[in-house]
Amino acid sequence: MKGFDFEEERIKQEITKLGAKRVLLQLPEGLKPEAPKIAKTIEKTGAIPIISIDPCYGACDLAFCEAEGLDVDLIVHFGHAKMVKHEKVPTIYVEARATAPVEAAILQAIRLLANYTKIGFATSVQHLQTLDEARDILTREGKIVVIGDSGQIAYPGQVSGCNYSNAKSIADDVEAFLFVGGGMFHALGIALSTAKPTVIADPYDNRAFLVNEQAAKILKQRFANIQEAKTAKTFGVVVGLKPGQKHLDTALIVKEKAEKNGKVAYLLAGREIAPEVLLEFPTIVAYVNTACPRISLEATSKFSKPVITVSEFMVVLGEVSWESLLKKGLFEN
Amino acid sequence: MKGFDFEEERIKQEITKLGAKRVLLQLPEGLKPEAPKIAKTIEKTGAIPIISIDPCYGACDLAFCEAEGLDVDLIVHFGHAKMVKHEKVPTIYVEARATAPVEAAILQAIRLLANYTKIGFATSVQHLQTLDEARDILTREGKIVVIGDSGQIAYPGQVSGCNYSNAKSIADDVEAFLFVGGGMFHALGIALSTAKPTVIADPYDNRAFLVNEQAAKILKQRFANIQEAKTAKTFGVVVGLKPGQKHLDTALIVKEKAEKNGKVAYLLAGREIAPEVLLEFPTIVAYVNTACPRISLEATSKFSKPVITVSEFMVVLGEVSWESLLKKGLFEN
Repeated sequence: MKGFDFEEERIKQEITKLGAKRVLLQLPEGLKPEAPKIAKTIEKTGAIPIISIDPCYGACDLAFCEAEGLDVDLIVHFGHAKMVKHEKVPTIYVEARATAPVEAAILQAIRLLANYTKIGFATSVQHLQTLDEARDILTREGKIVVIGDSGQIAYPGQVSGCNYSNAKSIADDVEAFLFVGGGMFHALGIALSTAKPTVIADPYDNRAFLVNEQAAKILKQRFANIQEAKTAKTFGVVVGLKPGQKHLDTALIVKEKAEKNGKVAYLLAGREIAPEVLLEFPTIVAYVNTACPRISLEATSKFSKPVITVSEFMVVLGEVSWESLLKKGLFEN
Repeated sequence: MKGFDFEEERIKQEITKLGAKRVLLQLPEGLKPEAPKIAKTIEKTGAIPIISIDPCYGACDLAFCEAEGLDVDLIVHFGHAKMVKHEKVPTIYVEARATAPVEAAILQAIRLLANYTKIGFATSVQHLQTLDEARDILTREGKIVVIGDSGQIAYPGQVSGCNYSNAKSIADDVEAFLFVGGGMFHALGIALSTAKPTVIADPYDNRAFLVNEQAAKILKQRFANIQEAKTAKTFGVVVGLKPGQKHLDTALIVKEKAEKNGKVAYLLAGREIAPEVLLEFPTIVAYVNTACPRISLEATSKFSKPVITVSEFMVVLGEVSWESLLKKGLFEN
């Protein structure tokens, strides 16, 4: 796979430095096809590489249990920046920086940003190295560029699937956001967190587009889900089992709150919170998801019952208003 | 759910005896709808019940990692008999014995067994309590009943998804097998392990039928898969991550054998070995599955590439003949 830096030399050096004998490779779906080639490179160090075939959506999803079960002494995690504070098994992050040029896509995006002067810039970890170039292009075109640094995520200007603190920290100072990266996923997160016009500059497809219509559609679905959950008497409170998604204490609080409000609540725990696994509980009417908030926010139409976030559950109980939830942003679980 | 004994009194007693504070409930798909009711019963002991929503296919699949991550001090595993020797987290097994009467289905099965006198009896753990009744009915109808006891599985007469040692131990002494239980899954296993006529007496649907046609179809598919794998140069060797399915040492041997035979081989590890996860590796041409053999044997048509068992790989390498594999039975991984 061309277009990404897999840092194979650094990986070999780290393996040698740590004296690792068994190495587990974790790659997100888009990068998995590259795993066999990387494994062959690792074999040259004398270590045994094992490729994890399980789904992997973020740096929240570190395969510690799997590594321990296979006597692995090093995890190489690709495609995401460090997120958890402490790794149970030594872990190195290979962020898989993209080599795609971004100028053409940014120039297209600037046309969509014609009415705005103060632009917040954000990007996924794959394109962080384009930050200076993006700032230069935007400045040259007469924009004032603001880059958020909340201190709550690995890099200034970075957004991840569930962390938009950098964008939120500058939302009041900008008129619109420019996101450099592929797909709608991260840009939608910015729009949902900040309610600002958000334009994607996609360097893979060399095109630019606004995501706010799609974000508005998601908000409508969320509102409908909350309304539906208000009528539910029986809740499942879902605890995620991935290391960065495990919030059992929150789930226990949610259960207690539900019961104080006359609801029946069950604790459920799972690795992949997919529509088909929730279908197994016909007596449960709505779910509160304490794991990855993106599951609730974007897979809505795939679930046959409401799957709401913890913040949304506070709206269900009347403890928080829908308006103040929107203001706070949808990603605070 | 009527029709199964969930032993709720015993569960409560065990929780009290152990002083368990947090209990993880694991149920296979068919029994999961009952989980909320059982959870409410457990709450009466003061313990906190957490329902695992992850797929669970057998007693090979014990949620030790999940339990440790949730500080659970007892797993209650439903629907399967003990299989692993040592549990990392205290575990009790609730076999969920079925209460469905079996006589009508057995009488129907006897018609299909008209040409045979010596009958091997086998059943899944749900129906083990019908063993004496089944023997009486068969004897009354003039059959000689043989019940296997290999010592390699929890109960005499029992078969599980991957263990047919009881059936195999008596295969030479009987003309046909009678299996009491629902679905084709276990009876197919008997037919594939013993090559004997095998009749299901299904107490849920009150009907009986032979499974050997279906077994022959599977054998044809297996043969075709082996032939296809013979042309492959690049293999993925899959290690299962479920406690009773983890055979890394076997996988290492398979990889070495593959390489000695001029093949390229990669170690892969995963929890759910599903068609979609294997699609992520376009350069791999065939897979050797060291985890659950049923994945290879029955989901064949769902996989786009051959997924063969370890024994089948020996046929691919020419170390074992197809005929001797059939004789040994398809479940020896």
